Amino acid sequence: MIIINEHYLKLKASYLFLEIANRVSAYQKNNPDQEIIRLGIGDVTEPLPQACLDAFHAAVDEMGHRETFRGYGPEQGYDFLREAIAKNEFQSRGADISANEIFVSDGSKCDSANIQEIFAIDTKIAITDPVYPVYLDTNVMAGRTGTEHNGRFENVVYLDSTPENNYIPEIPNEAIDLIYLCFPNNPTGAMVTKEQLKLWVDYARENKAIILYDAAYVGYVRDETLPQSIYEIEGAKDVAIELRSFSKSAGFTGVRCAFTVIPENLRASDSQGGEQPIHPLWNRRQSTKMNGVSYPVQQAAASVYTAEGQKQTRALTDYYLGNAHIIREAMTKLGYDCVGGDNSPYIWMYTGKDSWESFDLLLEKAGVVTTPGSGFGSCGEGHIRLSAFNNRENVTLAMERISDVLR
Amino acid sequence: MIIINEHYLKLKASYLFLEIANRVSAYQKNNPDQEIIRLGIGDVTEPLPQACLDAFHAAVDEMGHRETFRGYGPEQGYDFLREAIAKNEFQSRGADISANEIFVSDGSKCDSANIQEIFAIDTKIAITDPVYPVYLDTNVMAGRTGTEHNGRFENVVYLDSTPENNYIPEIPNEAIDLIYLCFPNNPTGAMVTKEQLKLWVDYARENKAIILYDAAYVGYVRDETLPQSIYEIEGAKDVAIELRSFSKSAGFTGVRCAFTVIPENLRASDSQGGEQPIHPLWNRRQSTKMNGVSYPVQQAAASVYTAEGQKQTRALTDYYLGNAHIIREAMTKLGYDCVGGDNSPYIWMYTGKDSWESFDLLLEKAGVVTTPGSGFGSCGEGHIRLSAFNNRENVTLAMERISDVLR
Repeated sequence: MIIINEHYLKLKASYLFLEIANRVSAYQKNNPDQEIIRLGIGDVTEPLPQACLDAFHAAVDEMGHRETFRGYGPEQGYDFLREAIAKNEFQSRGADISANEIFVSDGSKCDSANIQEIFAIDTKIAITDPVYPVYLDTNVMAGRTGTEHNGRFENVVYLDSTPENNYIPEIPNEAIDLIYLCFPNNPTGAMVTKEQLKLWVDYARENKAIILYDAAYVGYVRDETLPQSIYEIEGAKDVAIELRSFSKSAGFTGVRCAFTVIPENLRASDSQGGEQPIHPLWNRRQSTKMNGVSYPVQQAAASVYTAEGQKQTRALTDYYLGNAHIIREAMTKLGYDCVGGDNSPYIWMYTGKDSWESFDLLLEKAGVVTTPGSGFGSCGEGHIRLSAFNNRENVTLAMERISDVLR
Repeated sequence: MIIINEHYLKLKASYLFLEIANRVSAYQKNNPDQEIIRLGIGDVTEPLPQACLDAFHAAVDEMGHRETFRGYGPEQGYDFLREAIAKNEFQSRGADISANEIFVSDGSKCDSANIQEIFAIDTKIAITDPVYPVYLDTNVMAGRTGTEHNGRFENVVYLDSTPENNYIPEIPNEAIDLIYLCFPNNPTGAMVTKEQLKLWVDYARENKAIILYDAAYVGYVRDETLPQSIYEIEGAKDVAIELRSFSKSAGFTGVRCAFTVIPENLRASDSQGGEQPIHPLWNRRQSTKMNGVSYPVQQAAASVYTAEGQKQTRALTDYYLGNAHIIREAMTKLGYDCVGGDNSPYIWMYTGKDSWESFDLLLEKAGVVTTPGSGFGSCGEGHIRLSAFNNRENVTLAMERISDVLR
């Protein structure tokens, strides 16, 4: 008799964005004439850069001729892409990462979900609160947590991100094995400084912990003093895995390409106290469980590193950052404390009110979809996340409507 | 202190196709003038069908305009593809499968690797011997097996596929929870009849087991009396998950698209003996751990179901089946017993000799790469797998060379 993985039953049935979709759909039904503006889910809206379109088409053409046709590619990604990433994302900024340490995938969501598989089942994890739900949910599904009480799972350390600490959690005073950090942060938009990140790297080195550093939004960092990669921090290569994505930097949410960096000298222990390198474990995981990313998609991603591609992706992120600036300015003018929106496409706004109530208010009175902060964790209560992913006209109109409601 | 998942250490470091690559590379180095013909790995060589290329290009164009741009798609796949699959692959053959039961993914390898996650850790699994290694390796990595002794893992039931049973394993006389079956089989090329498959469905119903039916090669079945889907068998919807792929039917190994069918009424138990539907579990797994398949890829896949696409994919599989026919005829003429090659792109040839020795002989004397049967399990010893995935000229030349060596 086959039995299910009962850890799945510990998860709530309703998922944040599903609940939002249901409320929006109910509102739309009752207000068929109201044009809704979506600043909720963090999904891009603008076309792919021309360089990506051209490379994408050219690679599809290659698939039409026996001489240039490509079948199975390397599970780790094609060398042309891994080398372009290593050179442009890391080496050019003084971070000594080689192509062999880059694993191309079809999304940071997959990588952040799958990475826990290569660690022991009794690994002690820490996540921030608020947090991108995938880090937690995948550990619940794996059986690494207890059950939920008052919105928090047993055997998980929660790192509070609050107005008091400017949404950068403090270093814990207990031993943790695997720490999920995300900067620029989703959902808060807060960005860590090199000095703050150094404290985390030092903590991990002292505690023989590993940091999973999700930098999916790093394409929005404009302040050159801020870290573009955790590997700019001394000692990070011994303790950190970094996740990156083309989703938000090049508009690839529907195209699907990302990568994960596993440094060759990253180590963990076995139960006998022996040192075990992580690189071959992840390599084994990926080569056993996937067959690499679509070849035309990898060519489209590689085009990001051409001169044209760099110019066009910069223009794309500048566009969304322009939206973010408008949002943050409008909310600040209304007297609300905000974080994010400068080096991030998200604005995290403190309302001090029940966040689903704020959500409903903005939906029903302004026709604007936001994300209630409590959906990301209990410290998100009293907050609303506004996303800069929309076109300029919609963002401007949304700010006018919200200002009319909240003024 | 972070500890690794030590189950990974139970796996052998060397992977079959890596060892083959190493031997081929050594041979090539010593024989730089010999042109090697690859009938080893099961990877397609011929261009994508024109219908797929056209749809692929059109979808990339859509990504270049705000009005038609697509961001995140549904994790389960777009309705246009799920509906086309349900209608053309199942309903048209009398198998009552709906679009909602289809989960689109980027590969059958991923799906066959991931499916075990939704079942309990003490699930008793059965695999055939020989077998596609992913079924076993992913269960080893999850900790569902003991260690390996003489090529076999503890806590796994091996279903022998041998010349004596015509490579269709017998129904076990013990209770198993999860049974991995693959027809047309990889590596043997053997195909199950409806009567034989009915016995498995009946076994699963009696034992409250689930069958994972991998039908990735079903596009090669030409005998209309053979099952194109396990759901053509009465009662299968209560006990079977089916995996399908565009890789071999439409040349998508480098494009990446596949799908898995989870019937709505498929059930397992919880530890209290309650019935638990599988569909929401897989839906939760997929929506938590991935973000759907690349939009242009899904459009390319959907084009397979147009009139042109159907004609062109049929021509493509006919081409490889033509190769398979040539291979099987040549080997039979030499006096070898073979299975497969009629309703499958693989020919499983019984040599009675050590299979790595046969591999080396054909590589060194004929310059032809095959796959040694023992790489797929101990019952593969004495066999060689020949793949029909190459162009006609190469296959013809390979058969001439092999015939000269073995005659």
